[in-house]
Amino acid sequence: MSNPFFINKGPFNISVLLKLLNSKTKIEKEQEIGDIKDLVSAETNCITFFHSKKYQDLAKKTKASYCITTDNFKEYLPSQCKSIIVENVLIATSLITAKFYPNSVEDEFDNSVNNIEKTEFSKTVNFGKNVLIGNKVKIGSNSLIGHNTIIEKNVQIGNNCKIGSNVIVRNSIIKDNVTILDNCVIGKKGFGFFPKSNENLRYPHIGIVIINENCEIGCGATIDRGSMSNTEIGKNTFLDNQIHIAHNVKVGENTIIAGQVGIAGSSIIGNNVKIGGQAGISGHLRIGDNVDIAGGSGVIKSIPNNSKVMGYPAKNLREFLKESR
Amino acid sequence: MSNPFFINKGPFNISVLLKLLNSKTKIEKEQEIGDIKDLVSAETNCITFFHSKKYQDLAKKTKASYCITTDNFKEYLPSQCKSIIVENVLIATSLITAKFYPNSVEDEFDNSVNNIEKTEFSKTVNFGKNVLIGNKVKIGSNSLIGHNTIIEKNVQIGNNCKIGSNVIVRNSIIKDNVTILDNCVIGKKGFGFFPKSNENLRYPHIGIVIINENCEIGCGATIDRGSMSNTEIGKNTFLDNQIHIAHNVKVGENTIIAGQVGIAGSSIIGNNVKIGGQAGISGHLRIGDNVDIAGGSGVIKSIPNNSKVMGYPAKNLREFLKESR
Amino acid sequence: MSNPFFINKGPFNISVLLKLLNSKTKIEKEQEIGDIKDLVSAETNCITFFHSKKYQDLAKKTKASYCITTDNFKEYLPSQCKSIIVENVLIATSLITAKFYPNSVEDEFDNSVNNIEKTEFSKTVNFGKNVLIGNKVKIGSNSLIGHNTIIEKNVQIGNNCKIGSNVIVRNSIIKDNVTILDNCVIGKKGFGFFPKSNENLRYPHIGIVIINENCEIGCGATIDRGSMSNTEIGKNTFLDNQIHIAHNVKVGENTIIAGQVGIAGSSIIGNNVKIGGQAGISGHLRIGDNVDIAGGSGVIKSIPNNSKVMGYPAKNLREFLKESR
Repeated sequence: MSNPFFINKGPFNISVLLKLLNSKTKIEKEQEIGDIKDLVSAETNCITFFHSKKYQDLAKKTKASYCITTDNFKEYLPSQCKSIIVENVLIATSLITAKFYPNSVEDEFDNSVNNIEKTEFSKTVNFGKNVLIGNKVKIGSNSLIGHNTIIEKNVQIGNNCKIGSNVIVRNSIIKDNVTILDNCVIGKKGFGFFPKSNENLRYPHIGIVIINENCEIGCGATIDRGSMSNTEIGKNTFLDNQIHIAHNVKVGENTIIAGQVGIAGSSIIGNNVKIGGQAGISGHLRIGDNVDIAGGSGVIKSIPNNSKVMGYPAKNLREFLKESR
Repeated sequence: MSNPFFINKGPFNISVLLKLLNSKTKIEKEQEIGDIKDLVSAETNCITFFHSKKYQDLAKKTKASYCITTDNFKEYLPSQCKSIIVENVLIATSLITAKFYPNSVEDEFDNSVNNIEKTEFSKTVNFGKNVLIGNKVKIGSNSLIGHNTIIEKNVQIGNNCKIGSNVIVRNSIIKDNVTILDNCVIGKKGFGFFPKSNENLRYPHIGIVIINENCEIGCGATIDRGSMSNTEIGKNTFLDNQIHIAHNVKVGENTIIAGQVGIAGSSIIGNNVKIGGQAGISGHLRIGDNVDIAGGSGVIKSIPNNSKVMGYPAKNLREFLKESR
Repeated sequence: MSNPFFINKGPFNISVLLKLLNSKTKIEKEQEIGDIKDLVSAETNCITFFHSKKYQDLAKKTKASYCITTDNFKEYLPSQCKSIIVENVLIATSLITAKFYPNSVEDEFDNSVNNIEKTEFSKTVNFGKNVLIGNKVKIGSNSLIGHNTIIEKNVQIGNNCKIGSNVIVRNSIIKDNVTILDNCVIGKKGFGFFPKSNENLRYPHIGIVIINENCEIGCGATIDRGSMSNTEIGKNTFLDNQIHIAHNVKVGENTIIAGQVGIAGSSIIGNNVKIGGQAGISGHLRIGDNVDIAGGSGVIKSIPNNSKVMGYPAKNLREFLKESR
């Protein structure tokens, strides 16, 4: 994933990064580190991270100069890549990512915004009262933006979009013909952090939200941006009111989601799925194509294509109805 | 139902309407069609629709000049009423309704609004900052409207009402002594459309929302307007926070609904009903008077008067508690 | 509980208060009554109330001049304390409380607010557009307030706080390092009233909301203030989006609550508790420390420390999973 929005505050000297981690790793000479990337996309002068054995083959080939890892994984790294041994790779990675992308940790309000009347969109967009637009926003032709709506910096909105009133959009790409109803908050950071006594450690969210063509997002939706990947809604998918889509979730195309549904972090929903009102889907699941999930269901396991489920925990629809007679 | 708000863009020549439906129905002479109405209320020069055999007796007596229907129903129509044969009566009806009432399909923000200070209400209403009021709004005496609230065109608000901050009201009639708390969205279109691959077809919502005397609506509620009938909340009914009331729902009088409850489209809730927090009620059900629905219940069948239910699916309260020991 | 915010409109002559209750209690001489307080904190010249036998020992020692009670409890009162006999002690108490603290019944928007640019905070707070600040607000150093946010009168906000956009805060104390995300409504009155045919009777909410250090409150949360005690969120507790916390609830420290959870009135949640998405907790329960409540659970009984529960009604986690295979 390449993120178009968050500004890289690097490079930083490797000694600065090591100090941030309280690391005693010895360095032979000072070096500028330009970015933090995953094992595959890291280039020389990058720092990377390696926290699970399943990535050992990728680790062997990384081009990074430095790698955050643990003592038992360091042997997999190639010779040009120096290991930085830490207790918790994810926490250390989080600290370094926050150093490079400090704006991805918190959602401080965008103080670059101006009233739309003072921007280039004053003649190309049909807008309401008190609309605020941040720096470097793009908005296509024939789009509408309702009253009191805030489009924060860097957001891209396509053609023929209808954005309601009291909406907040940040860190997002909205494609053509998308409707977003009143009171939505799109693109805020997800609910991801390392719990620590006295002061939880928030990790960066460098993913964005992508809403594809012809979607409709109901009133009061919250669609959080991803942490290390994007949150994405497929084409022609319709969401009813008061829905919560957590970080890193992918929803397929032509999917219909009724009111008050919640989808927890990193779950993947297929195409042509129907989800009834108030259903909940746990994190890290995979829901296949053409799945029907009855209203009120609590889904705690992945579901294969073409299934109909109901219940809490959700099971085969017929079985559930038979048992609950 | 007569809708006071949506403007009829007709009349249209029958040839224009037939073309819109890609219909090959032959007409003897051109005729102006003034409105689309149901079988009963349609007059001559109206177009109507007939999609289910249960309406055959009404069909026989309709005064409409044209009727959208299917091949096997056309025989019931009286001789002055010409049939327009289509594959899907509801989709065709939706297209014609949208032609007459284009503003009932989408909820484009009301660009007729002005700051309340510039309206007739500047002296009769007690209002906050940045309050916006649309054309032809009526507001009774001794009412309050909080900061950043938007009362879109045509809305009627009674006496002694208290509207909170950040509220959006459209297509609604609010009777006397009603309290609407912060962040509510009242009167937007419901979640009704015909699913179509690549581009769902939204159908018109020509119903409104009526909130009767002495009601209280909690923070963040969404109460959607009806598609072909009104959404209505009876007198002295209180709603807690974050409640979703879908299109065409009728809630009775003296009913109490706790936080985060959702009621799906077209269900009818009686008088003196109590609904516990997070309960969900499926669409097209009838919940009797004096019913108690326990918090968290998922109601998927109609419930007779004077019942107490709990569970998912909701069943007799005692039975549920006994089984779940 | 001493409430710092609601203004006491007293004193009132005892004859005025008796008239309000339609009481025929005879008084020997007129007396000014300064406040209504509970049995323990009432001083001479106060009115108090006594509605349950479990408070009989406290009643015997009250210093109040008058006490609202019933015929069978009056004998417990000390001689200096005159009884006012009523049918329903709580309704009568509510009427008298509303007399002393009329602003605690309704949440009328604060018309004391000004644009922050016109206040003392124009130089000490980093703020967005259209921020409104009421009278007697306190805001510490290094805090942020986003666009369109309303901080009503009397609210106290600590140092290093981050308040998002479109937020409404009233009757609340926000401690240091607290983050409140967009669209929250903090400190409104709870859903508490006496149901009456034709016109429910709202009772006063003289409690406030206290959010302690290092908390994060997700988008769209509603945290209602208490009726006779405070609603309080402990240190370093994190709430995800669309959560509802009802009046008088106490949440402990280091607790994590996922999206769309609802906690009903007066429940007490311990420290280090984890509550999964969409779980609901009934009112007046006590959830111990270190409890894990699985997503979607419906908790209707108190839960001891160190338990893991799941289901509706929630039971031991292992038992639930075994039964639902």
